[in-house]
Amino acid sequence: MSILALRSDLIPFLEPFLPQNELSSSKPFVTLTYAQSVDSRISKGRGLRTTISHKETKAMTHYLRFHHDGIVVGAGTALADDPGLNCKWSPSDGEPTLQTSPRPIIIDPHRKWKFKGSQMENLFIQEKGKAPIIIVKQVPPANERESGVTYMSMQVDDKSGQFNWQELVHKLKSDFNLNSIMVEGGAIVINDLLNRPDVVDSLIVTIGATYLGKNGVEVSPLNGDFELKNVTWWRGTRDAIMCANL
Amino acid sequence: MSILALRSDLIPFLEPFLPQNELSSSKPFVTLTYAQSVDSRISKGRGLRTTISHKETKAMTHYLRFHHDGIVVGAGTALADDPGLNCKWSPSDGEPTLQTSPRPIIIDPHRKWKFKGSQMENLFIQEKGKAPIIIVKQVPPANERESGVTYMSMQVDDKSGQFNWQELVHKLKSDFNLNSIMVEGGAIVINDLLNRPDVVDSLIVTIGATYLGKNGVEVSPLNGDFELKNVTWWRGTRDAIMCANL
Ligand SMILES: NC(=O)c1ccc[n+]([C@@H]2O[C@H](COP(=O)([O-])OP(=O)(O)OC[C@H]3O[C@@H](n4cnc5c(N)ncnc54)[C@H](OP(=O)(O)O)[C@@H]3O)[C@@H](O)[C@H]2O)c1
Ligand SMILES: NC(=O)c1ccc[n+]([C@@H]2O[C@H](COP(=O)([O-])OP(=O)(O)OC[C@H]3O[C@@H](n4cnc5c(N)ncnc54)[C@H](OP(=O)(O)O)[C@@H]3O)[C@@H](O)[C@H]2O)c1
Repeated sequence: MSILALRSDLIPFLEPFLPQNELSSSKPFVTLTYAQSVDSRISKGRGLRTTISHKETKAMTHYLRFHHDGIVVGAGTALADDPGLNCKWSPSDGEPTLQTSPRPIIIDPHRKWKFKGSQMENLFIQEKGKAPIIIVKQVPPANERESGVTYMSMQVDDKSGQFNWQELVHKLKSDFNLNSIMVEGGAIVINDLLNRPDVVDSLIVTIGATYLGKNGVEVSPLNGDFELKNVTWWRGTRDAIMCANL
Repeated sequence: MSILALRSDLIPFLEPFLPQNELSSSKPFVTLTYAQSVDSRISKGRGLRTTISHKETKAMTHYLRFHHDGIVVGAGTALADDPGLNCKWSPSDGEPTLQTSPRPIIIDPHRKWKFKGSQMENLFIQEKGKAPIIIVKQVPPANERESGVTYMSMQVDDKSGQFNWQELVHKLKSDFNLNSIMVEGGAIVINDLLNRPDVVDSLIVTIGATYLGKNGVEVSPLNGDFELKNVTWWRGTRDAIMCANL
């Protein structure tokens, strides 16, 4: 049995935005998803773990994880939130299994985050979550590699110091057979990807009925003024969810 | 007949948040309302008039104006947008009348905005809108007063240089018999009032399915991290509307 109750009307609502199985494409299906306050903050401040969404929309996060092969967060989020990134939802006829949890992927060019001692390691040991792929500039020497971790190295752009998003998602598919990837944050990653309709296939935003204020960590893309496509809204007890295409 | 079609499900949705006639109170009922992008921007940039909401939610603005005696904007908005601030909605058995338009109130301590040549003056001449009350630090000398305008003077706080919101709304009721006031913007005014549950009785926010980006004019209160009360959502074709109490 599923350990998290999902409101049943969320299932048809989300359906058109879930990964479509284009297994032939060299690019995986990419879903960008996050929870924000009305004033577009995703946390009270860097490093401050913040509850924004209601239990019923949190359940949706796990439902989405069930439908994706991989789950990406930036190093900032891994360090600030120590997220588990496993899947606690399952269809009513089954238990959540290791198999249905997505593969965690941490974008950590400078290897700031450690698997050892993390919640992710804890879940991995209990066989409730998979071990991560860490995307780095350079694979560490053998004596510095963490047990369980898979390193994937990529070159950064000389000017921006950033990995190329297209290359990154293509490599996750070609090297690890991940056909669908959800991106959960944080702000730097989200702001980047909101300007990348060539990378992002679905956008799913939860808006919690709260204001986090000027000092919160803000989501707002550098290049603005674009209208979303195929917009659809769901309303819950306290939150709204918007699905759209960029 | 009403010139603006209002989606009929908006009427029961808005009902609990419309002014309740507490005529005996010395404070008018205050509604704070604005339209934002998903990333909490209310315009592309200062001085850039921006369409955020769909026609059906614009109609709501006029329905709300119909239900209020006064409508407040800051000097920044009056200068940037040259707003008309009249009411174009009416019940199906009537035409919009001058009577049902709210009284425009401009918070303009330094008298930067001019009524002469404005859209508001134009509507006033056509008897489609009322003449404004301008709230100033000092009533101008007789030869500088604009014809049609009523000046209301108030002292500013020594430290903040601001009018006191409680005093301001009380004075609008005692001096002009305005029992209900809606505040439409802009950013400085909204950010202030989001931190004033003692002043604001209802909050009505339209969220348009657009991102305006980092350079947009942002709404986010200085003091954040508060949960809204009595939250309720409406979903339209492209927009969502949230009603709540602070
Ligand atoms: N509400 C939500 O849905 C939600 C979800 C997740 C996170 N959050 C919040 O978000 C905050 C963290 O956000 P954040 O903006 O600080 O961090 P972040 O986006 O999680 O991580 C940013 C870091 O990841 C690396 N990175 C990201 N994109 C890259 C690219 N294309 N190429 C190379 N490196 C890249 C960079 O590391 P280097 O600096 O080493 O180069 C960058 O500084 C936390 O407060 C967390 O609570 C909220
Ligand atoms: N999407 C929407 O719903 C919406 C609605 C309205 C406006 N807008 C946008 O908002 C922008 C304008 O916002 P804004 O922040 O520049 O200006 P604003 O809030 O309209 O006006 C700010 C000015 O009003 C005066 N003021 C406000 N509160 C005061 C107080 N308590 N005491 C004394 N004076 C006070 C001050 O004038 P002084 O500087 O002279 O002291 C202040 O600078 C425009 O781009 C407009 O398009 C959007």
